[in-house]
Amino acid sequence: MVSIKVGVLGATGLVGSRIVSLLAHHPWFRVAAVSGGQRNHGRRYAEARHDGGAGVPDYIADLKVAASDATAFADCQLILSALPAEVASDVEPVFAAAGHAVVSNAKSYRLAPDVPLIVPEVNADHLALIDVQQRRRNWSGYIVTNPNCSTIVLSLAIAPLYAAFGIRQLQVTTLQAISGAGYGGVDALSLIDNVIPFIAGEEDKIESEPRKLLGAFSNDGIAFADFAISATCIRVPVLDGHLEALSLQLDRPAQADEILTTWRDWQPLKQRNLPSAPAHPVIYLDAPDRPQPRLDRDAAGGMATVIGCLRRCPVLDYKLIALGHNLVRGAAGGVILIAELLKSEGRL
Amino acid sequence: MVSIKVGVLGATGLVGSRIVSLLAHHPWFRVAAVSGGQRNHGRRYAEARHDGGAGVPDYIADLKVAASDATAFADCQLILSALPAEVASDVEPVFAAAGHAVVSNAKSYRLAPDVPLIVPEVNADHLALIDVQQRRRNWSGYIVTNPNCSTIVLSLAIAPLYAAFGIRQLQVTTLQAISGAGYGGVDALSLIDNVIPFIAGEEDKIESEPRKLLGAFSNDGIAFADFAISATCIRVPVLDGHLEALSLQLDRPAQADEILTTWRDWQPLKQRNLPSAPAHPVIYLDAPDRPQPRLDRDAAGGMATVIGCLRRCPVLDYKLIALGHNLVRGAAGGVILIAELLKSEGRL
Amino acid sequence: MVSIKVGVLGATGLVGSRIVSLLAHHPWFRVAAVSGGQRNHGRRYAEARHDGGAGVPDYIADLKVAASDATAFADCQLILSALPAEVASDVEPVFAAAGHAVVSNAKSYRLAPDVPLIVPEVNADHLALIDVQQRRRNWSGYIVTNPNCSTIVLSLAIAPLYAAFGIRQLQVTTLQAISGAGYGGVDALSLIDNVIPFIAGEEDKIESEPRKLLGAFSNDGIAFADFAISATCIRVPVLDGHLEALSLQLDRPAQADEILTTWRDWQPLKQRNLPSAPAHPVIYLDAPDRPQPRLDRDAAGGMATVIGCLRRCPVLDYKLIALGHNLVRGAAGGVILIAELLKSEGRL
Amino acid sequence: MVSIKVGVLGATGLVGSRIVSLLAHHPWFRVAAVSGGQRNHGRRYAEARHDGGAGVPDYIADLKVAASDATAFADCQLILSALPAEVASDVEPVFAAAGHAVVSNAKSYRLAPDVPLIVPEVNADHLALIDVQQRRRNWSGYIVTNPNCSTIVLSLAIAPLYAAFGIRQLQVTTLQAISGAGYGGVDALSLIDNVIPFIAGEEDKIESEPRKLLGAFSNDGIAFADFAISATCIRVPVLDGHLEALSLQLDRPAQADEILTTWRDWQPLKQRNLPSAPAHPVIYLDAPDRPQPRLDRDAAGGMATVIGCLRRCPVLDYKLIALGHNLVRGAAGGVILIAELLKSEGRL
Repeated sequence: MVSIKVGVLGATGLVGSRIVSLLAHHPWFRVAAVSGGQRNHGRRYAEARHDGGAGVPDYIADLKVAASDATAFADCQLILSALPAEVASDVEPVFAAAGHAVVSNAKSYRLAPDVPLIVPEVNADHLALIDVQQRRRNWSGYIVTNPNCSTIVLSLAIAPLYAAFGIRQLQVTTLQAISGAGYGGVDALSLIDNVIPFIAGEEDKIESEPRKLLGAFSNDGIAFADFAISATCIRVPVLDGHLEALSLQLDRPAQADEILTTWRDWQPLKQRNLPSAPAHPVIYLDAPDRPQPRLDRDAAGGMATVIGCLRRCPVLDYKLIALGHNLVRGAAGGVILIAELLKSEGRL
Repeated sequence: MVSIKVGVLGATGLVGSRIVSLLAHHPWFRVAAVSGGQRNHGRRYAEARHDGGAGVPDYIADLKVAASDATAFADCQLILSALPAEVASDVEPVFAAAGHAVVSNAKSYRLAPDVPLIVPEVNADHLALIDVQQRRRNWSGYIVTNPNCSTIVLSLAIAPLYAAFGIRQLQVTTLQAISGAGYGGVDALSLIDNVIPFIAGEEDKIESEPRKLLGAFSNDGIAFADFAISATCIRVPVLDGHLEALSLQLDRPAQADEILTTWRDWQPLKQRNLPSAPAHPVIYLDAPDRPQPRLDRDAAGGMATVIGCLRRCPVLDYKLIALGHNLVRGAAGGVILIAELLKSEGRL
Repeated sequence: MVSIKVGVLGATGLVGSRIVSLLAHHPWFRVAAVSGGQRNHGRRYAEARHDGGAGVPDYIADLKVAASDATAFADCQLILSALPAEVASDVEPVFAAAGHAVVSNAKSYRLAPDVPLIVPEVNADHLALIDVQQRRRNWSGYIVTNPNCSTIVLSLAIAPLYAAFGIRQLQVTTLQAISGAGYGGVDALSLIDNVIPFIAGEEDKIESEPRKLLGAFSNDGIAFADFAISATCIRVPVLDGHLEALSLQLDRPAQADEILTTWRDWQPLKQRNLPSAPAHPVIYLDAPDRPQPRLDRDAAGGMATVIGCLRRCPVLDYKLIALGHNLVRGAAGGVILIAELLKSEGRL
Repeated sequence: MVSIKVGVLGATGLVGSRIVSLLAHHPWFRVAAVSGGQRNHGRRYAEARHDGGAGVPDYIADLKVAASDATAFADCQLILSALPAEVASDVEPVFAAAGHAVVSNAKSYRLAPDVPLIVPEVNADHLALIDVQQRRRNWSGYIVTNPNCSTIVLSLAIAPLYAAFGIRQLQVTTLQAISGAGYGGVDALSLIDNVIPFIAGEEDKIESEPRKLLGAFSNDGIAFADFAISATCIRVPVLDGHLEALSLQLDRPAQADEILTTWRDWQPLKQRNLPSAPAHPVIYLDAPDRPQPRLDRDAAGGMATVIGCLRRCPVLDYKLIALGHNLVRGAAGGVILIAELLKSEGRL
């Protein structure tokens, strides 16, 4: 059994904690070092976590929280980063330059022309950009990025349709869970008996990232997919699980049953046997009132996009509801699946 | 001071109770009779209400709950109906045939070709359909209907834009409050840590009713406005206040400041001095995270649509957020405002 | 491997559904028949459930819902009843008379002098009352009852203290989850931004049932434990998990560490190897802000009482917080554990 | 009409903002200066508030936020302090020494032997301690304190019973609203589908402050009332309104109707005509499921304690439920009512 040493940056936050928990019994990866904010430096990892390290095995719980600099992580070939963007911008290149494979959940480099933005089922071929990146930047390591949580849920829903029918335009309204804002992100006074139609920076991400994901790699770069996306993002009093109301127009006409079949048959990672990959990245529910965050966010271990309510749209072609677990598939699990893809591609 | 006797049908439910409460100190109307379900017949009105008649003056609190038949309401020129649709379908025509002016919140006759569907600021001229209705049905009274709650919030937002610029197509995702489902409408187990992307029949109403409202009266009928509406309706854990995320395409180009000015200057009822009419039916908020249900639903006594977040839409022309109080402007207050309009038109 | 055929009465409600789900892979028991309300008679079981039978194996999902009469359950030696009390009162004796072992979650017979009220860790010896019951009533079967959900959480907390130190008096305020009221039990309008200090009949149960549980069996009856209990019951917007704030006065003085040790060492079922018994029925948490419903209700599979905040009480002796999963240990799991105890005692 | 210039310290927080809003149209007091945290110094007051100064008249909205030092407040005879305790400890004595009348909501000096802790209906006579304080500390001004929010709700409920019957011991479990923790006090992730049985320092306050309030002034000091209080404090997902489940033992036996009469007749401030005093500081509701936070917190403008569910307690004598608005009567309104009492006593 392979065992690759992993360092987790920002390991005490909500996403970093989830990465560590998901790796606790991973067949390929072994958490060997963790970093966190200054007030936690030197503390036992379990004690630095908000949940006291619930469910974390002793060998991880006993790690000392380090600063996010390369010295403490020299042994870790693989770096999974849950750093805040303002820290990630400076820190991640240092690791990449020092030869580490960095998979980052931060937004800092998602749209950089030589940095792959990856959803493994959607654009594994974009990893070729790593070679471009290493050449241009003269790095022995590299940075690969995980998209915004809402983007991932959305991209799994539309990628097979984009491949089969083309997409001309897309409207999406997201109802996003509180955990997407991290610890301290939303005050309880703000969100009881309320929703908030504003999440800083979120609409821009959803309007751009999917077009990079669905873009074509050629000539050492990505040509963004050429269709317009309009996003409205709303925070709702749900703990976990982003729900998205989509309307889309296809390039070529499609019957509803063709769309359902396309989703059902879409298993792009099937041959790779990645430990965290869901058997079906898209799951369609027939009930008229599904998916719902609390009932469906944990489908396929939180790694799938669950879809329902496919129906004709009087303005575009189809309406549908998509849902995914923002902390698992949308963040921690997404980062890990990218790392598994890198291993499968021989890049680890 | 005029004093018109009013009968309220379905007066013990959430909407009917609100109608009665709003009429408690009304300058023109005086509640003289109330009806309710069979188990409440003969009970004192205050005791039949879920809230024990909080804030209701004694002369109303002491009314006995009657059945919804015309005998108990013979004295009431004006009938305000909050009956469930399946009851309203049979009962309301009996009242209209007997000479009563019926303003109904039920969906039963909203789309009937000879029944006005009215938002007073939007299409007061459609009241001319009353004459057609009386002629065709040989009624001495008539039925006028109040639209679906989400439709009203939406229509106030778009009516001035429709008049000024034309509308080509419109997408709306609604986040609807629990009170829209009435007492017993939503189980608490369903909606804590959750949202539900399904409200039976709601999308159809929103996709059709605004087009009747914005339609033109001519030749004894209404020609529906000719643009497509696409609606997605989601129930959220909010007590009162429907929030709507809109995207729309205009017929003629407009700058954002033209749109803001159009809303600001829109005061179609100004000359009529209707007691329940808001000074400004549309209120625009500049803050980036408004409107919010809990903070803004009571603006202008719950009778206005509060708008915010106007911004360019990459797919259609503009995106915006609209909010209104579903029980006040969207139901009880809307019914009362229609009655005031009827009075102002000399039809009471 | 033994395999005892089980009939579940009231199998489509919240508790009955949970019983069936918990039995899906039980080593001793096999669900062979299910009953439900009249509108579900003859329907496929999975379709009659609110959750569509999520996670239920095919052989159970395909059962037809029967009426709660003995004919459909002739094969089932063991009957687990989640019937509403008003139905259970009539139905359960019929089954017992016909030779079935009935374990009931209904309140109907909990306080009957010849019916055991059982928490297996607390008063397994009360099963001797079965012999009294069969003799008096001339039944070949019998009824055993599971206490009220709040009673169970409470009893696990205090039983070892009662045995070790005696209890003189006890105050408890419960913060009870919505699921305790069943489907349709609490309207969402009632409980958002609110709590309700009233649960019909609940305080009486908590003030009497623990005293039967802790009572002594002798002379063919139970002498209730002789101490006063005062209960205040409040419904709170929590999905699952009843939290209880206790103050108690002991008969004999005890240091806090003696109490902690008493809980830690309390493993009364250890030798019996019952499949559903938690290793430790009481789990103590040291953190100052635990237990909490969402974080701790699933400890030990929802079968333990989780305790925290033990501290001196200025009025009685000690204050503490106890928490348990009302649907698992407090209802479905409690019923199953009693059935396992009956098997272990040779009464099945 | 008198018009006393008031300075509000900590005027941008939740309590301070409420003080200012309640004073906006006060007949006696006029807000003339406001202080806030360093990042707000020099900003326009309305903009420094979380709610943008909603409902605040222009002359207050336009005030510049000052530092909490005496220079900016030289004109203000009356200082109302909503400072955090760690700031209040240093700042408030400076104001008192400089001759200001300081009414403080901070805990810093509540238990100081020469500082009055006041609920105007309960212990107006304790204001005599001001003279002791000025003598001992050689201050020309003075500090008077408002109790903890839960204490106030509790004290209004029990003060008339203490006077009429005596109290021997008291148990209370509080279900406290989120607003009691201030902005940023509770993360939304913590409290959806959850309650938290811990509020730092709160139980100590409730177990001591009421005994000072109900104590007797003599010999230049307060002899604390001699009965034990046991408190358990739990945070619940309610926006405003603390609900308290009480059990109490009286010194002398009393029938329930004597207690009800005692509450009903209790109008200790009647002769003083204080603008913010509720006509009845205690309101009893007969419905079995009241009071409830959302339905009853605004009774008497949020200035009363609403009581219900009076019933026999099997351990002590009586159980009851009390409720009060933590931000109004429990904080901002309580501070203002004390100031009105000071005026009425000729101390302003």
